[in-house]
Amino acid sequence: MFSIIKQSLLKIMPSITEEGMAFFMSKLEHRTLAKHDLFVKEGQVARDMAVVYKGAFRLYFTYREREQTGHFMFEGQWIGDYESFLTQKPAANTVEALEDSEVFCLSYNNMQQLYKMGAQYERFGRLIAEYVYLVAMNSYKSLLLKTAEERYLELLETQPHILERLPQHYIASYLGIRAPSLSRIRNKLAQKR
Amino acid sequence: MFSIIKQSLLKIMPSITEEGMAFFMSKLEHRTLAKHDLFVKEGQVARDMAVVYKGAFRLYFTYREREQTGHFMFEGQWIGDYESFLTQKPAANTVEALEDSEVFCLSYNNMQQLYKMGAQYERFGRLIAEYVYLVAMNSYKSLLLKTAEERYLELLETQPHILERLPQHYIASYLGIRAPSLSRIRNKLAQKR
Repeated sequence: MFSIIKQSLLKIMPSITEEGMAFFMSKLEHRTLAKHDLFVKEGQVARDMAVVYKGAFRLYFTYREREQTGHFMFEGQWIGDYESFLTQKPAANTVEALEDSEVFCLSYNNMQQLYKMGAQYERFGRLIAEYVYLVAMNSYKSLLLKTAEERYLELLETQPHILERLPQHYIASYLGIRAPSLSRIRNKLAQKR
Repeated sequence: MFSIIKQSLLKIMPSITEEGMAFFMSKLEHRTLAKHDLFVKEGQVARDMAVVYKGAFRLYFTYREREQTGHFMFEGQWIGDYESFLTQKPAANTVEALEDSEVFCLSYNNMQQLYKMGAQYERFGRLIAEYVYLVAMNSYKSLLLKTAEERYLELLETQPHILERLPQHYIASYLGIRAPSLSRIRNKLAQKR
């Protein structure tokens, strides 16, 4: 049962006890989202973070007057606008389901309650903050420092399944280019091989 | 004694006990840096985070083949490359003293020891991770989404003392422009007022 969720939690906190895990899981709320439903909407406060049980998501924001995809999330990964969740202020990002999806949500209030339960949960909160920090840093740094072609090669290397699973225009939106430019990059790389 | 440090810690963890604070402070190591000394060097592992007791620092990285200043840190603020500190992998950033400075360092090993001491310190680790996350997000987002002029106005509003305290070329490096362009922005804004 919920082994994807359990594994995902164990990755962040390998030393959690069985009881601790069961208690934590009892605080999660199951939710289904249809394709194109929004889990977080820009301008609204993010009340939940969630682990993906089934499905695919992207986080995007407005950049140079167009939609820039920041990253993609799949089974076992956390979704949400962590900044808005932490500060309980309106989100700068939107998180959209790209397939019919199921997630397990942790609300802000439940998270605060867990923190009061002791070191184990404080540790979890710390580790998730550290983890989200590293993911977000990578995502922004890549967008800031790398060319579209470099970002494409990075995707090929780190998340090759994305290229098969998601429509081209989302990949283009992640690379910060339009679909025809993506075709040019693919053709150029194909010729090199 | 050390009231700057104490206030800075209290801002992150307002509910820490007197004893907890004293114990935490006993784990900090005093260090002096001369102007232009590096606290973190790109390519080396960051062994410490530190709170600034006296002085000024900037964090910079290579962006479009030149030095891009990411942010400035002053008395009471944390310095370091948090990503390198967390992962204990080589840093992507450099942190340089801009004045003769004094800091109080928390080593990676001491931080790990503190975590084992209980919820209070786990809580501190979580809060600092959250805090650093929000600061870094703001810094990257501003660089990615704002023009040099917008960034200058932001500085004027949020850290006006920077403009008096630091040489022009650091401000230009933060804005991602050269000194003559900074003069143009200043003149333009002066005319508007």
